[in-house]
Amino acid sequence: MNSLAKLAAVNRSKVLANLAGATGTLYLRGGALTERKWTDTEERFRQESFFYYMTGVKEPEFHFTLDLSSKRTCLYIPRYSDDHALWMGPPPTAPQVQAKYAVDSVLTTDKLPEVLAGAGLIHVMEAAELPANVASAAAARGTVVTDEFLRTAITEARVIKSEGELELMRKAARISGEAHIALMKAVRPGQGSEREMQALFEYTCFRLGAPIQAYNPIIADGRSGSVLHYGKNDDKLSSDPHQMLLVDAACEYELYAADITRTFPLGGKFAGDFKTTYEIVLEAQEVVLSQLKAGVEWEDMHRLAARKILRGLMRAGLVVGTEEELAKHHIGELFFPHGLGHLIGIDVHDAGGYPAGVQRIQEPGIRYLRMRRTLQPGMVVTVEPGVYFVDAILDPAIADPAVNKFLNVELVQRFRKHVGGVRIEDDVVILENGIENLTGWVPKSVADIEAVMAASSA
Amino acid sequence: MNSLAKLAAVNRSKVLANLAGATGTLYLRGGALTERKWTDTEERFRQESFFYYMTGVKEPEFHFTLDLSSKRTCLYIPRYSDDHALWMGPPPTAPQVQAKYAVDSVLTTDKLPEVLAGAGLIHVMEAAELPANVASAAAARGTVVTDEFLRTAITEARVIKSEGELELMRKAARISGEAHIALMKAVRPGQGSEREMQALFEYTCFRLGAPIQAYNPIIADGRSGSVLHYGKNDDKLSSDPHQMLLVDAACEYELYAADITRTFPLGGKFAGDFKTTYEIVLEAQEVVLSQLKAGVEWEDMHRLAARKILRGLMRAGLVVGTEEELAKHHIGELFFPHGLGHLIGIDVHDAGGYPAGVQRIQEPGIRYLRMRRTLQPGMVVTVEPGVYFVDAILDPAIADPAVNKFLNVELVQRFRKHVGGVRIEDDVVILENGIENLTGWVPKSVADIEAVMAASSA
Repeated sequence: MNSLAKLAAVNRSKVLANLAGATGTLYLRGGALTERKWTDTEERFRQESFFYYMTGVKEPEFHFTLDLSSKRTCLYIPRYSDDHALWMGPPPTAPQVQAKYAVDSVLTTDKLPEVLAGAGLIHVMEAAELPANVASAAAARGTVVTDEFLRTAITEARVIKSEGELELMRKAARISGEAHIALMKAVRPGQGSEREMQALFEYTCFRLGAPIQAYNPIIADGRSGSVLHYGKNDDKLSSDPHQMLLVDAACEYELYAADITRTFPLGGKFAGDFKTTYEIVLEAQEVVLSQLKAGVEWEDMHRLAARKILRGLMRAGLVVGTEEELAKHHIGELFFPHGLGHLIGIDVHDAGGYPAGVQRIQEPGIRYLRMRRTLQPGMVVTVEPGVYFVDAILDPAIADPAVNKFLNVELVQRFRKHVGGVRIEDDVVILENGIENLTGWVPKSVADIEAVMAASSA
Repeated sequence: MNSLAKLAAVNRSKVLANLAGATGTLYLRGGALTERKWTDTEERFRQESFFYYMTGVKEPEFHFTLDLSSKRTCLYIPRYSDDHALWMGPPPTAPQVQAKYAVDSVLTTDKLPEVLAGAGLIHVMEAAELPANVASAAAARGTVVTDEFLRTAITEARVIKSEGELELMRKAARISGEAHIALMKAVRPGQGSEREMQALFEYTCFRLGAPIQAYNPIIADGRSGSVLHYGKNDDKLSSDPHQMLLVDAACEYELYAADITRTFPLGGKFAGDFKTTYEIVLEAQEVVLSQLKAGVEWEDMHRLAARKILRGLMRAGLVVGTEEELAKHHIGELFFPHGLGHLIGIDVHDAGGYPAGVQRIQEPGIRYLRMRRTLQPGMVVTVEPGVYFVDAILDPAIADPAVNKFLNVELVQRFRKHVGGVRIEDDVVILENGIENLTGWVPKSVADIEAVMAASSA
């Protein structure tokens, strides 16, 4: 039994606890191989997250059932063609699959209609998931198919990570952090490009055992840091040594994600408006990290970060007015326009941010918050405040007398001429009385970043 | 006007020549952004090949029309949301798109039904391509929609590469070749893994400007070389210095592919059964390269390679009997079970291998041939013979008295205990009287490979 299957068995027991008393059969469909349209060029395969959570299977084209009465599990594997061995190597046999994934039985996919025709209820992620022949066989027997029910049960299980899951997330964080450090050491003002930095980042992860990025990397030099999901990564690096590179990138390890952002000066020394901006964000991030623990409301942490950023902006003289006034008019959100962070796990924006019935708060900034929950031990969240100088926000703000009266327009204009944005992001496990910061060791303080960069340029 | 748009203009003129006399409007739909199922994790975008050929556009979510009467071209761009600038940066404007791609007009996508409702005939790649509202508007007016017609016209144009296309393919070949050399230099017996070799290969391409691989790399150590499309790439490297690594990998540059295979000894010196196998393949590849030119039938080149391999197997003593007998019983195909090569261009297995009405030859080996055409100047093909010791082929062959009488079973068993397979693959442009080999400079002869590997281990 492989370690991922062991993890999946733990996961399933959590899902079954959420389904206590329910009858019928769970059905999940694994990811299929896909090709570029109108070609036979296979795309890289990455298992669908819910299926992976329930089975630990990374191979394509599998299906899974779990009978809620007997608790018997079954994996369904394709009938491989005769050519398969020649082109792809010997296909896995049923006994191999059964041993590897520790399920009660393994059948070929063509047995699915027969097995599921006998089920009184079939619980699926989405009605369209059911293969057509299974759906028609079920319909003929009057079998009821439900969705949402299964999905909610798995989602709620996924929200709280087991120790086995945390081990994989620590590994993803470790590798991703090493890649960040590689960039800090390699970067030089005016040399190379964002693209080359991305290449080095992905290579470092790949070399250390993580071939898949958890999301498309953001490698933003200078003003491009003001684009929150900048992904072009095709500019040359600035020649100004004080200019900064914002790197929001991380790999997944065994399909568990990390999500790390670091922002650092190309020349290795923080200075001037860049340093001012950096310190506002760092202070906000650190105060949130110091407050996080079980029982805290996530949206309160967002508001705490926003308030801390507002005070930093006041201190820097970028905004003008009383704290109360500025908060009331959401002036801080002109510079911190996104949410504080999100659940992370098999997916970088992990399932379960908004439980059924919980709505987004319709106010600037916080409306982008990807989670509203009371924090519980075993949740893993990102903490990623930022301060940006975004043209699309600042142009209308400066033009609006109701808003510009709260801005030191001259100073804002000076900053935005060269400062793009700063984001600092860690991944933390919520504990009863605090956190385990999975990525806190990746240089983040001004002194630590300057030290690691100085060592490399020596 | 960007250089890719210039290329697309040339491409379109070739397609229009194929459509001379036709009326109506061509409609093509560009690739859309996709997300991992049930998540917001965006997958990496790569433009759909036919759309790219006709427009040069690499961005997602565009559409294109070309009016066959007026020859007017139009690109349709999304109506970007208000949030777009914050998250993704300022969206492209219509005038920017028009200037960049040198089309006659640029509209937003919501104008498509109106424009196409006026067309008498709409030519599409596939009926399902038409957006639902366009299809219903067209149906209401009795507009006829055709497929195949457009697809054939573009496919036939794609088969013959322009000089501009060849420039991009030379670049893809150059970068991919450098990555092969990087692996030859880095590999050490018993050190590291196939995965690390893949990481280095992709990094080298990425660093040199090619972030996308043209296909999933095959990095096969030892016996895994006998799996034609081996893609697990997760084994440790053998400690036997004479054991070989088969590397079938290449990038695409501006979406134009290369496709290169090299097989080399982990320790830098060819020897014994490995060398014997290597030289059989190399000789077959070289004889094909020497014969290739316009006017030749591709299947004849396959048969030439197969015959040359058969003679090599005879000389090595692996097969026993007269050449005529062995050929008649397809004994060579037990060791060379796949096709000689294929068209290559925007796709690694490029469109147009089998023109309408041309069937595959239903005989061992050649039935996998991906092209049957008379070679013409401007075609680009891969030449990739191989010799493998495949369990799934040899086990039944050795068990069958009608087949095993042609085999020196003892010797075959000795080879297959350690030799996986050898494939050698170049990309060549067909010329009137020969070829331009885009990848021939990547070390391939025993002496050249040994020289480059010796230089690195010194």
